[in-house]
Amino acid sequence: MSQTKRVAIIGSGNWGSAIAKIVGANTAKFPHFENEVRMYVYEEMVDGKKLSEIINTEHENVKYLPGHRLPENIVAEPDLLNAARDADILIFVLPHAFVSRICKPLKDVIKPGTIGISLIKGFGELPNGGIELISDVIRHSLGIEMSVLMGANLANEVAEEQFCETTIGSKCHQSGTILKTLFQTDNFRVTVVPDVYTVEICGALKNIVACAAGFADGLGLGDNTKAALIRIGLKEMIRFCQTFFADGLQLTTFFESCGVADLITTCYGGRNRRVSEAFVKTGKSIEVLEQEMLNGQKLQGYQTCDEVVKMLNVNGHTDRFPLFVAVDMIYKGQIPPSGIIERIRLEPNDN
Amino acid sequence: MSQTKRVAIIGSGNWGSAIAKIVGANTAKFPHFENEVRMYVYEEMVDGKKLSEIINTEHENVKYLPGHRLPENIVAEPDLLNAARDADILIFVLPHAFVSRICKPLKDVIKPGTIGISLIKGFGELPNGGIELISDVIRHSLGIEMSVLMGANLANEVAEEQFCETTIGSKCHQSGTILKTLFQTDNFRVTVVPDVYTVEICGALKNIVACAAGFADGLGLGDNTKAALIRIGLKEMIRFCQTFFADGLQLTTFFESCGVADLITTCYGGRNRRVSEAFVKTGKSIEVLEQEMLNGQKLQGYQTCDEVVKMLNVNGHTDRFPLFVAVDMIYKGQIPPSGIIERIRLEPNDN
Repeated sequence: MSQTKRVAIIGSGNWGSAIAKIVGANTAKFPHFENEVRMYVYEEMVDGKKLSEIINTEHENVKYLPGHRLPENIVAEPDLLNAARDADILIFVLPHAFVSRICKPLKDVIKPGTIGISLIKGFGELPNGGIELISDVIRHSLGIEMSVLMGANLANEVAEEQFCETTIGSKCHQSGTILKTLFQTDNFRVTVVPDVYTVEICGALKNIVACAAGFADGLGLGDNTKAALIRIGLKEMIRFCQTFFADGLQLTTFFESCGVADLITTCYGGRNRRVSEAFVKTGKSIEVLEQEMLNGQKLQGYQTCDEVVKMLNVNGHTDRFPLFVAVDMIYKGQIPPSGIIERIRLEPNDN
Repeated sequence: MSQTKRVAIIGSGNWGSAIAKIVGANTAKFPHFENEVRMYVYEEMVDGKKLSEIINTEHENVKYLPGHRLPENIVAEPDLLNAARDADILIFVLPHAFVSRICKPLKDVIKPGTIGISLIKGFGELPNGGIELISDVIRHSLGIEMSVLMGANLANEVAEEQFCETTIGSKCHQSGTILKTLFQTDNFRVTVVPDVYTVEICGALKNIVACAAGFADGLGLGDNTKAALIRIGLKEMIRFCQTFFADGLQLTTFFESCGVADLITTCYGGRNRRVSEAFVKTGKSIEVLEQEMLNGQKLQGYQTCDEVVKMLNVNGHTDRFPLFVAVDMIYKGQIPPSGIIERIRLEPNDN
């Protein structure tokens, strides 16, 4: 890598724009980085004007993060290759469904030594019923070293500069250090751990647990029961990592922001909890609720759960994940929501 | 211990009465136990009648757990020594301030092989500024083997037989097994771990963290910040155990009900959170709030925090516990509640 590192952000939604506020401020502040940060913007028209031009003149992403000024060194770029060209550090922050299609053309502009960091939650699905980590998809596609960043980071609160924490998973100490410099502020506290897989997997699996928490809320179950569901969900998250991604796993990673903290916010706030509560209370199908409550977007927790349970089936592990399986069965109408309690009595008592 | 074990419950408040429902049902069900369970009741008059007589005729603790029928084999006994005499298993469930004074006379009726289990949350205070575990107070006083039971167990929800989990800490495998039989039901799921200290300490320290969570609510801080405070609190709970009670410590214990689950319920429900929120919003002193909101009872989280911070001071460890120290300083008026954020930026980044 060159002495002064060039940073590019691939993605400009709500989370991408919030993180651009931080990244732009830090590249302007620290000599480690080139001042200018190009941000890839999927071009769309807003009130008759191009979104990229609005961002570059008004310094605000009026569509996805209205009300927050972006630093002037954040330059919106509708051409993906122009955005990524010559970058030493690529920040991936776009919906996981777009990752493969973005990576193909990107390959041509990657220079030796470029590193990437994924802020994307969710899994890719393998044809044989397994899951693939998004960071692995990018790593394999572009041949670059990949880190991840996950934590209890609701985008709007980060943009408001409310105090919070996040976790960077990075196998390389040197990369971890430079990435911490790039992302940390007084109100966005970064911890770096080497356990990349666990950091990334927590960010996806917590959404399944939030569905269970939402069912509990919809059923009017008490605080003890909801806490039990969250705890059992956490145990299944740990067990999943131990079963399928044990390489480099450290239990302490689950005590970082990407683990318990993100799980807690997601199970008390968050759309997965909210839609799952409505699923119980209204009796509407998941498809109808996605239309009504998420503007037609897919409910991440349900999608992830479907992929994970397929993988458990293929590998003969369903008995060890009664909560994950119950969430899947409930959304597919195979058991009623109240059936989740009977299922989690079967939770294995291992450590 | 004899083949058929006699069980006695020392205490009959809200939690003691809820647990009596479970224990009475299980001693009637399993041949391991004598059917009758004597429950020590601190005698008081309710509407002109003795509480112990009300319990023995109406099978309801009308004062501390109204609306729930106790099993008929639960026999209220106002004489402490009669209650405990010949017991093989003593269940301690009374306010921690009464423990020492209860133990002195009890010593005379303890028979060889009797075991005890403490359901009491909080610490005893040593004259030199240290804390003493309640189970150690009882163990040293009576010379019996002690286990503990802690978890996300709001008493009224347990009495309503809502699904929940709990953790028994027991160094002896045989005792752990018989205690699990005594306490477990379909809706009260018991996990036994050997790490007694951690189980007990979590039950006390979580109340300090709940004070921090309550301050966050009072200040109107967002979900990210509250999750960060809870996570940092959990890290300090772990660090406290590692520093002062490392013997037999297992990180996995923090994933049990006594750890994350109890912490979550306490930080989202619970009186420590509620009073701390009011402390910020009303500006009233802790003494006034204890009168107004707790009928003059002490706020456990503040008491525990005071004891813990004294101990940290004596041992030169305050730098490693910025959240605990901040809660203490806030309640003592040394920093404003909003000062908690500045303090936790100092959180050490160890694992």
